This record gives sequence, structure tokens and C-alpha cells, in this order.
Amino acid sequence: MTFQTEENKTNFDVPVRLDLQAPIHELIANRRSPRAFSEQPIESAKLLSLFEAARWSPSSANEQPWRFIVATKNDTRVFSSLVESLMEGNRRWAERAPALVLALAQSTYSKTGTAYRHSWYDLGQSVALLSVEATALGLAVHQMGGFDSDKARQLLSIPDGFEPVVAFAVGYPDQPSTLPDDLRKRERAPRSRKLLQDFVYTEEWGKPSSHIQTQNSLLTQPLTN
Amino acid sequence: MTFQTEENKTNFDVPVRLDLQAPIHELIANRRSPRAFSEQPIESAKLLSLFEAARWSPSSANEQPWRFIVATKNDTRVFSSLVESLMEGNRRWAERAPALVLALAQSTYSKTGTAYRHSWYDLGQSVALLSVEATALGLAVHQMGGFDSDKARQLLSIPDGFEPVVAFAVGYPDQPSTLPDDLRKRERAPRSRKLLQDFVYTEEWGKPSSHIQTQNSLLTQPLTN
Repeated sequence: MTFQTEENKTNFDVPVRLDLQAPIHELIANRRSPRAFSEQPIESAKLLSLFEAARWSPSSANEQPWRFIVATKNDTRVFSSLVESLMEGNRRWAERAPALVLALAQSTYSKTGTAYRHSWYDLGQSVALLSVEATALGLAVHQMGGFDSDKARQLLSIPDGFEPVVAFAVGYPDQPSTLPDDLRKRERAPRSRKLLQDFVYTEEWGKPSSHIQTQNSLLTQPLTN
Repeated sequence: MTFQTEENKTNFDVPVRLDLQAPIHELIANRRSPRAFSEQPIESAKLLSLFEAARWSPSSANEQPWRFIVATKNDTRVFSSLVESLMEGNRRWAERAPALVLALAQSTYSKTGTAYRHSWYDLGQSVALLSVEATALGLAVHQMGGFDSDKARQLLSIPDGFEPVVAFAVGYPDQPSTLPDDLRKRERAPRSRKLLQDFVYTEEWGKPSSHIQTQNSLLTQPLTN
């Protein structure tokens, strides 16, 4: 039994058909991390909705460790600083996006000053919810760990107590044909993931959970895409 | 300008009306972390869909560092081990949930063996997507940092190289009236968050982004819920 998502409703020649092992909501199935972004600006109202989605993320003791530095093309100085902080491999496609964001995590709990172990974890949740909201609005997010944290800290005057964790580009996806050859190839590559039985366990660490085995006898087959 | 979500469609006396600063998709607005769970089992197919949502999460170099140990009430030994690992404050409500899950993160990149800085961040993303899928299925997830990691490692034979990060309960939410007095009060408390202007910056660290100020002149008012 395999489930497949509907064919991409846009005309983009990007394979979005996923070999699913179980059905999932289209907002999750349609989320992807493109490198080809249209230069079309993001409407101000949509930009707010992205961060509103991040805002309602859960966090340890409701600490809400997330901070975002957002720049559109009109925010010339900050946009340039973000571009300059990116590794060259990301810069070449990301600088075309209409908005760049640096996502930061608070290092300690504000009430106690003790180390906030789940700070990056909680930031990850908020960016994931932001990405789902982006998908709902026809936008897409591409996250990058590849940036110079020290340079970002210096250029953007980031104080101690906050760590730059990821940068991300956000905007309307564009045709892969707008990308350089090597990136176009990666953009069109099928998306792949480990199988459920490789990461969901019950009875024994490293062995597929019985909840998977009983549900789906075909799960021992590899993904075909 | 404030946006409010629709009144809760269920009969639960939980205030789910949020004072939104911008509209967001209902799957994000309706996500919450209840303590009152029904004992109704989770359908096997739905359980799979939860982990399928986690599966398609983005991750650094597509490493997919997430691992899950899942136990329903029928998995007596593993369910008990998970309950036993929880802090008392969580155990009292979480043990009623039909399923408990331990979420773990891989500590190093499998190809290079180097430290995986974004491992917890990426795990956070996958659990957030799982929570969105849960919301879509009428289920709810409540995450807990409050558990004994060493005890979990011992009881569940977790190998080196993987860190238990959060435990979570999942199931159908129930009426808060099923909870002890103190927890019922917390369950009914309004949900609160920092305002957008407190965590979205552009021109200067710590100052509200112009993208917020220009969009919404009322954002200087506190939340009213």
C-alpha cells in the first residue's frame, strides 16, 4: 500500500509526488525547500502571518526563545548583511529571494538564567510552523545552516545570550529553469526519506515498531521514486 | 486590528479563541497541548500518519536525525517504561493518554561522525509537523521536557549516539473536567504569547520590525485574552 500525493497543481516541473507510506495533510506533503524563488515581493499581510504562525508554537515553560531578523529587498542594509553572512553555495540562489530571515535562539531561561537545553529544539518547532503557514499561503521556505554565525552577529549587532541558528529564504517558488545548471538538477531530484520502519521503534531499539509492521506489509519495500 | 479564531467547534470548555495579530491557518491556530486526554485508542492508520508527517520534515543535509519510541496502552512494558521515566508532575495526567512517545536525536552526522549542531533543532521541526498532522486528525500532542533521560536510556536500552529530547503524550483531547482541580485550572487558562513586535526585528535588534509597525498600528496594545 502506497499513498501518493496529488500531482503538483502548479506548472512547475518539480517532482512533488511523494511516495507516502501513510496519508498526510496536503500542507505537510506540499511543503518543500526550493532554491528557485520568484522576485515577486511577499505581501506585507502574508509576511505577518508567517511570524504569527511561529508565535503560537509550543515551547518549554512557554519561554518562546525564538527571535527573527527579517529583511525584504527594500531593507537594503539588513538584506545585504544577511546575504553577506551566507556561505557562497547558498548565496548564489538565496539572494534572489524577496525576503531573508535569520532565526535565533535564546540561550538561557529568562526567569532563572539557567541553560535552556531545548532552545534550539523549540526554535525548530516555530520555524516548522512558519513553513506550514508559508505553504498555506503559496509561499515556500528554504532553511540554511550554511552561514557565518560570527559575521552575522557582528553585522547585525546580535547581543550575547542569543544564538543565530538558521537563515532562511522565503518567497514564491519559481520555475527550476531559472536556476544555474547544477542547482536545477538538484531542484528536480526526487525527495527521499528514510522509511518509517527505520526510525519508529517500540519493542526494541533499531527494530521496526509493531505498529508499522501490522499496518502495512509492503513497508519492507524501498521507496520507488 | 485583531483577528480571532473561530469558536471551538467541540463542546470542550477550553478557551481556544486566540487573540491573533495576523490570520493563520486553522491547523496552526487549533493546535494546543492539552493535559486532558480521552482513553479512546488511536486508530492504527492515524498513528502511522503522525510519523509520516514527521518523516517529511526538512533536516540538515537530509540527515533525518529523528527517532521515535512509541507505545500504546497495549505495549505494556514500553508504555510503563515511558510512564516511569516521566517526572511526577507529568505522569499524573500523561499516563491516561492512549499513546506515549519518546523523541530522540542523533548526535553526529552519520557520514562524517562530526557533531550535528542542528540535531535538536531538526527534531523539533519533525515533532512540530507531527503535531500539525495530529491536529488535522482531531488528535492532540502534549510535549514534555520533564522526564528522566538516564532512566529512559536504561529502561529502553537506548544506545550511545542518540539523545532522548522530549517525551510526548498523544490522543484525543477530553473535557478538562476529567482533570484534578489544579490541572483543570491550567487547562482552562487563556493561551498567551509575546507580541510580534517583541521577537521580529529588522532595523535594530530588540526594536519592532518596520514590517510590523507599518502593517498594524494597534500592535502596541497588549493581548486582551
